Amino acid sequence: MSGRNEQSKSAIFDIDKEKNFPDWYGEICRVAELADIRYGVKGFTPFLPWSLMTMNNMFDILEEVLQRKDHLPMLFPTVIPESNLTKEAHHVAGFVPQVFWIQDTGEDGKLEERLALRPTSETAIYPMYALWVRSWRDLPLKRYQRCSVFRSEVKSTRPFLRGREFLWIESHNVFTTHDEVMAQVQEDLETTKEVVTDNFGIPAMVFRRTQWDKFPGGLNTYAADTRMPDGKVIQLPSTHDLGDNFARAFDIKFLNENNEVMYAWQTCYGPAISRIFGALISVHGDNKGLRLPFKIAPYQIVVIPIYKGKDAEMVKEYSRKIQKDLRKAGFRVYLDDTDNTPGWKYNFWEMKGVPIRVEIGPRDIKENKAVLFRRDSMKRETIGIKDLKKRVSALGKEIDTNLRAEAESKLVGFVVDADAIGAIEDALDKGKIARTSFCTTEMEGQPCADEIKERTGGEVRGTRIDADEQPAGVCPVCGKIATAVVYIARSY
Amino acid sequence: MSGRNEQSKSAIFDIDKEKNFPDWYGEICRVAELADIRYGVKGFTPFLPWSLMTMNNMFDILEEVLQRKDHLPMLFPTVIPESNLTKEAHHVAGFVPQVFWIQDTGEDGKLEERLALRPTSETAIYPMYALWVRSWRDLPLKRYQRCSVFRSEVKSTRPFLRGREFLWIESHNVFTTHDEVMAQVQEDLETTKEVVTDNFGIPAMVFRRTQWDKFPGGLNTYAADTRMPDGKVIQLPSTHDLGDNFARAFDIKFLNENNEVMYAWQTCYGPAISRIFGALISVHGDNKGLRLPFKIAPYQIVVIPIYKGKDAEMVKEYSRKIQKDLRKAGFRVYLDDTDNTPGWKYNFWEMKGVPIRVEIGPRDIKENKAVLFRRDSMKRETIGIKDLKKRVSALGKEIDTNLRAEAESKLVGFVVDADAIGAIEDALDKGKIARTSFCTTEMEGQPCADEIKERTGGEVRGTRIDADEQPAGVCPVCGKIATAVVYIARSY
Repeated sequence: MSGRNEQSKSAIFDIDKEKNFPDWYGEICRVAELADIRYGVKGFTPFLPWSLMTMNNMFDILEEVLQRKDHLPMLFPTVIPESNLTKEAHHVAGFVPQVFWIQDTGEDGKLEERLALRPTSETAIYPMYALWVRSWRDLPLKRYQRCSVFRSEVKSTRPFLRGREFLWIESHNVFTTHDEVMAQVQEDLETTKEVVTDNFGIPAMVFRRTQWDKFPGGLNTYAADTRMPDGKVIQLPSTHDLGDNFARAFDIKFLNENNEVMYAWQTCYGPAISRIFGALISVHGDNKGLRLPFKIAPYQIVVIPIYKGKDAEMVKEYSRKIQKDLRKAGFRVYLDDTDNTPGWKYNFWEMKGVPIRVEIGPRDIKENKAVLFRRDSMKRETIGIKDLKKRVSALGKEIDTNLRAEAESKLVGFVVDADAIGAIEDALDKGKIARTSFCTTEMEGQPCADEIKERTGGEVRGTRIDADEQPAGVCPVCGKIATAVVYIARSY
Repeated sequence: MSGRNEQSKSAIFDIDKEKNFPDWYGEICRVAELADIRYGVKGFTPFLPWSLMTMNNMFDILEEVLQRKDHLPMLFPTVIPESNLTKEAHHVAGFVPQVFWIQDTGEDGKLEERLALRPTSETAIYPMYALWVRSWRDLPLKRYQRCSVFRSEVKSTRPFLRGREFLWIESHNVFTTHDEVMAQVQEDLETTKEVVTDNFGIPAMVFRRTQWDKFPGGLNTYAADTRMPDGKVIQLPSTHDLGDNFARAFDIKFLNENNEVMYAWQTCYGPAISRIFGALISVHGDNKGLRLPFKIAPYQIVVIPIYKGKDAEMVKEYSRKIQKDLRKAGFRVYLDDTDNTPGWKYNFWEMKGVPIRVEIGPRDIKENKAVLFRRDSMKRETIGIKDLKKRVSALGKEIDTNLRAEAESKLVGFVVDADAIGAIEDALDKGKIARTSFCTTEMEGQPCADEIKERTGGEVRGTRIDADEQPAGVCPVCGKIATAVVYIARSY
């Protein structure tokens, strides 16, 4: 963490993120000690302190918002009996191909029934909801869990972005009516905006997914996509209108106020924090390494004492006092008092993405000043030491605002209108997302989407729900009258 | 959570905890909505909001202490390749009989190598430590993870106390010398005292376990035991001196300052939060239900508005203001403004163990007063509303001090000296722990321990390290000269 033994290596990171994103991503995961890909089981990766501490801060923000909106935490077992997993037909078809199964125990034991490592927990939770929900008085029931989930992905894996084990929150909610379901979907989209965009600085477009790309077993899926540096998009949280499909499969019924037995209505919402972390470092990073938002950086501030010979102890002592004062004010502060040179430390902590650096030398101490360096713009300023706490607090907000604005600026011109396959392919080759009128997002549209995928590598991401867009003309594949405006992108 | 639909049921809990502990425990888990045993897979139990929120607060306190002592969080995969798990011979023998194995994936896939669900993570983490540790400059390496672990227990399971999946923190540390190992063991024991006793109010006795009862593959195990209401003891955190055994098995070596290649020295420490939660509710609960310490209760304060007819809105409004003020002051506060009667609410929240209740009626409002009720002693007091925050803060501390003192008072007379098998059995039958001189805690003592177990049901828990005790006379089983004073108890 401290890079104590790194003196011999150069701490300078320098890879062009926009031109060479795969290298940038792999290298930053390695040198910033985010993940170690040498674990030896495909798709399973240890998460190291620098990434885990950031993700824990991200989880805390998300949980605070969920709890403020009356969702309470719970935790279900990691394993799901096979007979539960196979109760909802579409869900089975969607998830069973990716399941890890447990049957053997100990030296030669066998379980009577196979257990799945949860790929998602509807089939673990809903049989219990069927026991818990009795009357309209029990509803709404709003619960979530923070856990690992497991999917035996066939696609190639990459730390955080696609793993066979990943970290998420899954929120599972039960209501008396479909209107309440739609209100919950709306609330989830607002939560996504508050957490992912306002707090993490990641701009997103929100889509209703096509019928062939929705959550298996649900009615509709609404999901936020953001742009990665290579022009591909990545899905951030998605929220699902489950209708009463799962209630019928798992027998979740309630007595309404007229004493009639009704099936319940449900939603689920799944922000994958480890994946959002992968998007976050990609969106905010630059050629020198990570740039972490002040709100979620494990260390928001690093204090670097600068001294020669006889000043050493005095400067270190003063730096410890600065650290203590800033910690007392509630900031997460690291003091790097190792024997590395100041220049080495600057490079190291810039690569790690610490938002603010405080540099303290003998002259600063004498003049009651400190030098502040901000990682986002790589700019320095000198301030009076009495203003330190106030300025750090303000600067933290400025940095986060600036990171978000920079990320938003990358979206300008990202969407390109295209009304033919050639134009779609051209847009995608340029790292853009193509907007086009399309026959239909109902199941009948899937063959056209498959053809687009085959010819351009692009996927139909669905229709925007945060913009009112009217189709015009015909589908560029089948030539039928268009009924939807869809976005097409290559994706993670 | 709110008990909104419970009006029809009685909220009065009344089971004699000391006389009928198994019933008390099972019932409180059910009615306080801590766990639901109907999940349908032996030993796997959903944890509900009331227990999970408490355990999350417990985790937060433990993590704060670990991080203050320079241990950083990380997270390893849930699965461990079979070839790793079987590298340390004693460890294999100790854990493989309890492993859940994964081999099948999807509809008909097979993994090349079986994967174990981690029963503990030495064999996942140490191969990576072998890559991370190069030089003395990399040491000490102090890391921990918060996760679920999985053991296919043959013993009967009970929510929190013994499950096939449980929640813990495991801390894994690497040093250059065995002296540092012993210092870390000491630090872990201090952490246990600070967290479990000072914060959770659970008194404990600390033992060095016998050689036949230590962590498989380690040199020595040090563990804290506490007394359960039925007189059995339960193990709380244990810390293990691993010597250099695992370093040799996993090839964890470092260059020392003289450029010599040395094997590293290691410790691990495993506070099982879900099990400690089970002990906590058992130790502090009373015949009316839970009594949660103020520091970790999900809701520290419940506000109950008391009104009739026309006063309703005014009292509710005032209660909301009280809730808001207390929340602003940093307390976790719940306002129960449901339609249940005040009496019903009193019983319900007493059963749930909320430490402080604020009762607000029209007359209290007029007189600028509030009634405070403390769950630990079931006593009421009336205070001026302007003193509310200050009094709640002080009362919280008083309650926690009192819960701890009550728990400690239960230990008076708990240890009974016994110098013969009959006396040991007699002590155990009376719900006591027997202290006796014993031949040896080295492996040669195991047959005597086995005989004691068979004849009395008691286990040799080891020798106290927090008390200086000299053996006298002979072993009550084999008659050899005693070399150790051991404690014998029935246990969880």
